[in-house]
Amino acid sequence: MKLGIYGYGNVGKGVELSAFQNKDVELVGIFTRRDKTKVKSEYGTAVYSADELKDFKNKIDVLAICGGSATELPTMTPELVKDFNVIDTFDTHANILEHFKNVDKIAKENGHVAMISCGWDPGMFSLNRLYAGAILPKGKDYTFWGRGVSQGHSDAIRHIEGVAAAKQYTVPVKETVDKVLKGEMKDFTMREKHTRECYVVIKEGADKKKIEDEIKSMPHYFDEYDTTVNFISMEEFEKNHSAMPHAGFVIRNGVTGKDDEHKHTISYNLTLDSNPEFTASVVVAYARAMMKERERGTTGCLTVFDIRPKDLSLKGYEELLKTTM
Amino acid sequence: MKLGIYGYGNVGKGVELSAFQNKDVELVGIFTRRDKTKVKSEYGTAVYSADELKDFKNKIDVLAICGGSATELPTMTPELVKDFNVIDTFDTHANILEHFKNVDKIAKENGHVAMISCGWDPGMFSLNRLYAGAILPKGKDYTFWGRGVSQGHSDAIRHIEGVAAAKQYTVPVKETVDKVLKGEMKDFTMREKHTRECYVVIKEGADKKKIEDEIKSMPHYFDEYDTTVNFISMEEFEKNHSAMPHAGFVIRNGVTGKDDEHKHTISYNLTLDSNPEFTASVVVAYARAMMKERERGTTGCLTVFDIRPKDLSLKGYEELLKTTM
Repeated sequence: MKLGIYGYGNVGKGVELSAFQNKDVELVGIFTRRDKTKVKSEYGTAVYSADELKDFKNKIDVLAICGGSATELPTMTPELVKDFNVIDTFDTHANILEHFKNVDKIAKENGHVAMISCGWDPGMFSLNRLYAGAILPKGKDYTFWGRGVSQGHSDAIRHIEGVAAAKQYTVPVKETVDKVLKGEMKDFTMREKHTRECYVVIKEGADKKKIEDEIKSMPHYFDEYDTTVNFISMEEFEKNHSAMPHAGFVIRNGVTGKDDEHKHTISYNLTLDSNPEFTASVVVAYARAMMKERERGTTGCLTVFDIRPKDLSLKGYEELLKTTM
Repeated sequence: MKLGIYGYGNVGKGVELSAFQNKDVELVGIFTRRDKTKVKSEYGTAVYSADELKDFKNKIDVLAICGGSATELPTMTPELVKDFNVIDTFDTHANILEHFKNVDKIAKENGHVAMISCGWDPGMFSLNRLYAGAILPKGKDYTFWGRGVSQGHSDAIRHIEGVAAAKQYTVPVKETVDKVLKGEMKDFTMREKHTRECYVVIKEGADKKKIEDEIKSMPHYFDEYDTTVNFISMEEFEKNHSAMPHAGFVIRNGVTGKDDEHKHTISYNLTLDSNPEFTASVVVAYARAMMKERERGTTGCLTVFDIRPKDLSLKGYEELLKTTM
């Protein structure tokens, strides 16, 4: 599979590393919208300007779109699917259906195949919600995120006057996770499910008390949670808060039996040292599966819900039945 | 979906109960190889003799084969797929490929579709091994079973002279599970991963010491494990050991990064009050997906590895993207 990487941020770098772990992947190149002379791969992968992509029309099987944030992908993916089979990590849950429809239309018009919203949530967590819900129709779903950085919440803090830098960790409340894992099926409040830990560097002369109050009372982002605010130096910030771990649980508790007397708990748990590298690893596996759909003549937009599990694996079907079933 | 149940043991009864939870399922009947006048559904489902199945050739969309043990299914499923689309729970891992080939050939010759080895292991555990292995190619898999009854081990004890009844629980060693969940990637011995708890009722005059020694030294079944043997009365046996809970973990620890410096743990955990009812719930969800494959013209044998996740759900695709992605 000839793979191109569009955008060389954290996920793009992760896709490059993941490609080295997968022997069926050949990296065609990295395409950057920055000045290409200033972007260098540590591993010698060729770097091209995004403008040069047009010369690669029939030389790339799948283009992994890693360049864009949630605001860029809605235009970037539909544009790129005109010329390529593409895969993206679009993660704004509320807009996935709209993004799907836009990409699907243009992919079909151009005879290409696309996959959107690959990663772990959306992605592996979505799959687990689907499987568990289909198996136990009578039940209740829980998703817990963390401990890990929430980009959106960190950004919200950074926009407060007097803040120089900020990281916000979402932390699941252990007692609540334990209750759910033990089969409890009640509704929990936002406050009961997650706490929010903030690490903030202030600008000289800024008012800590005012910033802390402003964070804690921010509607939706913080006001419904127990939030702790820690003011730290830029040095400490850079030393201790540059890693990108994340984690989370998808749990479904359901019942079966004559009188719903049998409880069942299905739980899926991820603990990740590197959120972007794990996301990238999911992207590469699904790029492989997408190519198999392509070989079957599929066009249009797909998601993890469409993909036959066997298509993700490097192993052949008989080998899968022997070693993995 | 018109569903027939072939065999009315624990799993068959579970399929009947699961059908009531799934509004797209219509139960056509239970087919028993016993005297049908002696088999009665608590819920009023029609009971037929297995011989009457021939009258239902075009009246059943999927026949769930729940009658057979590991020794019966290898002949039962290929025989029944001549006339029906069938689904089974064949669970002898070492023989799945062979069973697949037998069923696949006859299903194709007769224009039917079949699914084999549905349940949780093989089944949901297999899927999780596949997904995790595809995402993290550099890593190590662990499967832990229990606490739950192993039929094979219980049978092995029952065959010992002087034993009237026996149940064997496989129990994962908590310390080892915790180590693996924390990212450890070493090889563990059988003894380090599981212990075996036996509850045995002896016949009058039987020699407890001799039976205990015979159990603990039984090759493969017990000699490589720490085994405890508890002698109990038939009364206690019936009171405390008739439930069928089970549980287990599939865990993969993998690495990514320049120097494999980032560790990731993917874990899938089931805790089941009723092993057969949960298995049956998986069967019903996959029967639904099988019908969608059938509508696409698919024939032959399938497994959980072939099924598009979306086909398992009662929800439509757009609804899935809105609620589950």
